[in-house]
Amino acid sequence: MASLPCPASRILGPIGGSRKVYSSPPGQPEIRVPFREVAVSDNREPVATFYDTSGPYTEADAVIDYAKGLPPVRSDWIGARDLVDLGTAGPAAAETVVRGTSDYLPGCPAPHRRRRGQPGRPVTQREFALAGIVTPEMVFAAHRETLGRASRAPEATGIETGLPAEITPEFVRREIAAGRAILPANINHPELEPMVIGRNFLVKINANIGTSAVGSTAADEVEKLVWAIRWGADTVMDLSTGPNIHAIRDWILRNAPVPIGTVPIYQALEKVGGDPVKLSWPVFKDTLVEHAEQGVDYVTIHAALRRAHVPLTGRRVTGIVSRGGSIMARWCLAHGRESFLYERFDEICEILRAYDVSISLGDGLRPGSIADANDAAQFAELETSGELTRVAWESGCQVMIEGPGHVPLDKVGVNVDRARALCGDAPFYTLGPITTDIAPGYDHITSAIGAAQIAWGGTAMLCCVTPKEHLGLPDRDDVKAGVIAYKIAAHVADLAKGHPAARARDDAVSRARFAFRWDDQFNLSIDPDTARASHGKSGADTVVAEDKRGLSPVSSAAEPFCSMCGPTYCAMRISHDVRKTETDPVPPM
Amino acid sequence: MASLPCPASRILGPIGGSRKVYSSPPGQPEIRVPFREVAVSDNREPVATFYDTSGPYTEADAVIDYAKGLPPVRSDWIGARDLVDLGTAGPAAAETVVRGTSDYLPGCPAPHRRRRGQPGRPVTQREFALAGIVTPEMVFAAHRETLGRASRAPEATGIETGLPAEITPEFVRREIAAGRAILPANINHPELEPMVIGRNFLVKINANIGTSAVGSTAADEVEKLVWAIRWGADTVMDLSTGPNIHAIRDWILRNAPVPIGTVPIYQALEKVGGDPVKLSWPVFKDTLVEHAEQGVDYVTIHAALRRAHVPLTGRRVTGIVSRGGSIMARWCLAHGRESFLYERFDEICEILRAYDVSISLGDGLRPGSIADANDAAQFAELETSGELTRVAWESGCQVMIEGPGHVPLDKVGVNVDRARALCGDAPFYTLGPITTDIAPGYDHITSAIGAAQIAWGGTAMLCCVTPKEHLGLPDRDDVKAGVIAYKIAAHVADLAKGHPAARARDDAVSRARFAFRWDDQFNLSIDPDTARASHGKSGADTVVAEDKRGLSPVSSAAEPFCSMCGPTYCAMRISHDVRKTETDPVPPM
Repeated sequence: MASLPCPASRILGPIGGSRKVYSSPPGQPEIRVPFREVAVSDNREPVATFYDTSGPYTEADAVIDYAKGLPPVRSDWIGARDLVDLGTAGPAAAETVVRGTSDYLPGCPAPHRRRRGQPGRPVTQREFALAGIVTPEMVFAAHRETLGRASRAPEATGIETGLPAEITPEFVRREIAAGRAILPANINHPELEPMVIGRNFLVKINANIGTSAVGSTAADEVEKLVWAIRWGADTVMDLSTGPNIHAIRDWILRNAPVPIGTVPIYQALEKVGGDPVKLSWPVFKDTLVEHAEQGVDYVTIHAALRRAHVPLTGRRVTGIVSRGGSIMARWCLAHGRESFLYERFDEICEILRAYDVSISLGDGLRPGSIADANDAAQFAELETSGELTRVAWESGCQVMIEGPGHVPLDKVGVNVDRARALCGDAPFYTLGPITTDIAPGYDHITSAIGAAQIAWGGTAMLCCVTPKEHLGLPDRDDVKAGVIAYKIAAHVADLAKGHPAARARDDAVSRARFAFRWDDQFNLSIDPDTARASHGKSGADTVVAEDKRGLSPVSSAAEPFCSMCGPTYCAMRISHDVRKTETDPVPPM
Repeated sequence: MASLPCPASRILGPIGGSRKVYSSPPGQPEIRVPFREVAVSDNREPVATFYDTSGPYTEADAVIDYAKGLPPVRSDWIGARDLVDLGTAGPAAAETVVRGTSDYLPGCPAPHRRRRGQPGRPVTQREFALAGIVTPEMVFAAHRETLGRASRAPEATGIETGLPAEITPEFVRREIAAGRAILPANINHPELEPMVIGRNFLVKINANIGTSAVGSTAADEVEKLVWAIRWGADTVMDLSTGPNIHAIRDWILRNAPVPIGTVPIYQALEKVGGDPVKLSWPVFKDTLVEHAEQGVDYVTIHAALRRAHVPLTGRRVTGIVSRGGSIMARWCLAHGRESFLYERFDEICEILRAYDVSISLGDGLRPGSIADANDAAQFAELETSGELTRVAWESGCQVMIEGPGHVPLDKVGVNVDRARALCGDAPFYTLGPITTDIAPGYDHITSAIGAAQIAWGGTAMLCCVTPKEHLGLPDRDDVKAGVIAYKIAAHVADLAKGHPAARARDDAVSRARFAFRWDDQFNLSIDPDTARASHGKSGADTVVAEDKRGLSPVSSAAEPFCSMCGPTYCAMRISHDVRKTETDPVPPM
């Protein structure tokens, strides 16, 4: 069983009404940047181009074989660099562990050459940026940010955007060199379509997948990945626990066009039988190398949670709610020692730098309730994150900072402002925040409210919260609900920030709406399937039938009104009459 | 067919895990204020009391007969006032119109004595407030605001709340006298359980119901009302169009424990055969009287849309998107005259004051897209609303101001600030706002983001937007989705504003969560049915079965962890271990 079942057709092929296109920056045909294109029925309208994270899975004639993996679009760029070749065999340590488990699952058979950087030679995007070198990855990401076209000036949003009118490769380089942005791109992940994360770029979103102890299979996880990026996830974190973690991650990486993030402490805990007290630096170090060689693009490291912070959580309503945080707190108290992640952070950086694995400094003490928001424990850890950010930068590593959590709306702003101040403006990456504790089952909404607010304030990436948060593991529908809610929050923030590529899509949808071009409105929307289904089917018979049942109304794509209001009450239709009457406009009186 | 089918059982009876209770202010047993009470399994926990808008429908042994209507809880208070008795027959004018329609539907047979106020004698809550008189309605609303208990001081939220530690009847009176709040309570709506709308009270939400041309029946509409208030709608607007509007509204009012709002211009348009050009002051005036005598608590009047404003919409992307606004704009241009609603506004106030029908000044020129937000047309109309607010106040009427619409997040704050400045701090009542145009099918989310933001800024009431907005008429599930999203937005704002009654519920849910009291967490949540269902069923067999299918995980209410993370990775469980280890806390190093 070295192969996986073919992907279900419903998760493959173009999204309704659109087609996959590739665009290259002027004079660089070797760089093919993917976009999604929607042709609009009104030929006076421009073709709409959307940012596209879905990889080859949304090509019209996509032939997908998980066992072969995705085309290694970066291999020439990586191959041209001065790296050590490690061959193609999986790391012995990891294989042993995997074989040790009850039901053995082999990794993805797709050929995978592993490499490592050398001391004194640039490996990370940060090192290249600091050396003044613009990498193909930076060119790719820049072309992507402005949807492949010479960008327009930011819309007048009534605020000082601070964003450039055009996102150039040189601008991307400067942001990375300044530490304000990261371009997560492990040299062992050639299948990656590069993207950039930072306050001066489009707000990005992450979706979590992963097996649990009694969890799902590798096939389930790869399909969750394909599903999450279909709806717009910019990065995916594999939070798998339980058996076969290494092999499952292998299948995910070889089939991932987006950056993959992990939390190595989870697998380290598996290796010591699930007892936090038995964790040790050697076990963690091996795990880190294992992830780095497989191609993980960023790892969450809970090194900022120090022994002295733990007592600060003593009077909390919900204590410690981060898995990694609780594991390390337990270790510190059991051993009466400082966290080995904190003490060995320079060694951690040295390892990760050699593969260009970006660091995501975990917020192990993030608040788990409104009551605990912005407390001493949370901000003490954030201060340590600032200290470690500088260590990571010194080592040549790219780094971002993880944030809350549960925060009431009036305390959201302080979080991003303080993170910027303490961590030298390194990209902020938040989980929500959830803005009230009272709505389990609806936390994609409670957190989309906080996410839009914190992203508008300058947060670079948002981690999706699904409706199942606090209640259970998300299924496919939950993953989509979370991703869509966060695409909305991210876009709302891009609009408010005045990103040059944001407003065009809203205006295209609104023009279609006002012109009663129903299919255009659906195709231009964030989820054409749902928009079309909600509008209902056509045909007079259906109208009567459905209205008798009191269901949603219906209208054909041709009608100059819809049965929401009917012809008499259609404001937009009357508004068109008003414009006709207006050929001789009434002068202000 | 003078009766309606009995209500479906699923919309009756207590919400899961709670019971209906009534509480009276000290020494006033005749005032019985409804609340929802949740008993928590941990006896060290206080009983949780929630604000309850659902009326008798959620009583354990509710016997509901729509034909009899609800008990007239206000009749003694109204009877004691100096009013003219108009008898019990429906207004001839209206009956004629209704009889004229193809399929005649009689009104609700429940006895309904109609009254009218007299000149020079106080009728409206504003007039009583200005006279220094605290009405039973004010006492009722005050007791409701602080959940029937002596309120606690606002939580330290890091902001200046400006809210009192206790909401007293005298405070309610002062806010109404100042025009900062309204207490919509038509003297012909004795079934009403009074509530107050204003920036210094809990944020309220309105849900829309109503038939369309090919629409649903009276039974459907009353059931939509019962369903909407079950999930927390504070007021309900009947936007019915088509035949039998009068009779349907009759059934709704006699069975409504919440304030009912209408848009009289819709029915006036029916009376002139659906042609805006045929509208006239006499037809509108009759309709207004008809609504007032039936017991409508507030009416939307689009009097602030002046002829001179219409040309300002000429270059808009989505023109005029308000039904009432487009109707009046059409009338102004066709007749080349100023709006009769503007010219007759003093007469309108005189009519409405006599029944204490509150005025909701419509925003006929609200933006229908991000592109049109905060434009000249919108703010010109708002300025006229300010002018008319003072006219209404002079006449003794209560008034609130309607607001947008579609607004990007960075332009939300200006809307509420300007409305306050121009309209003397009269309550602001907004539709959303929707913060991006790209997500038809998800506008309960795009607008909940804007709604939380604008309510935090001081908006008093939020009009629910359902997922079907822009696409079709909402069905029962859509209505619930909209109401829940808005209950969340309103509560998020109450938390951020530091309302004294807001934080307790979040903390109760969080304590239950941290203590693994699953049933308590569900019962305390905003939608116990959904929370419980999302968490999944119990039993080891089920676990295996469901996990094999990759569905959401499961756990019994007893487990000190859930299968989201399993025992090894349960942060909260480890956090409890940490606390045990902490009996001798580690000193800061």
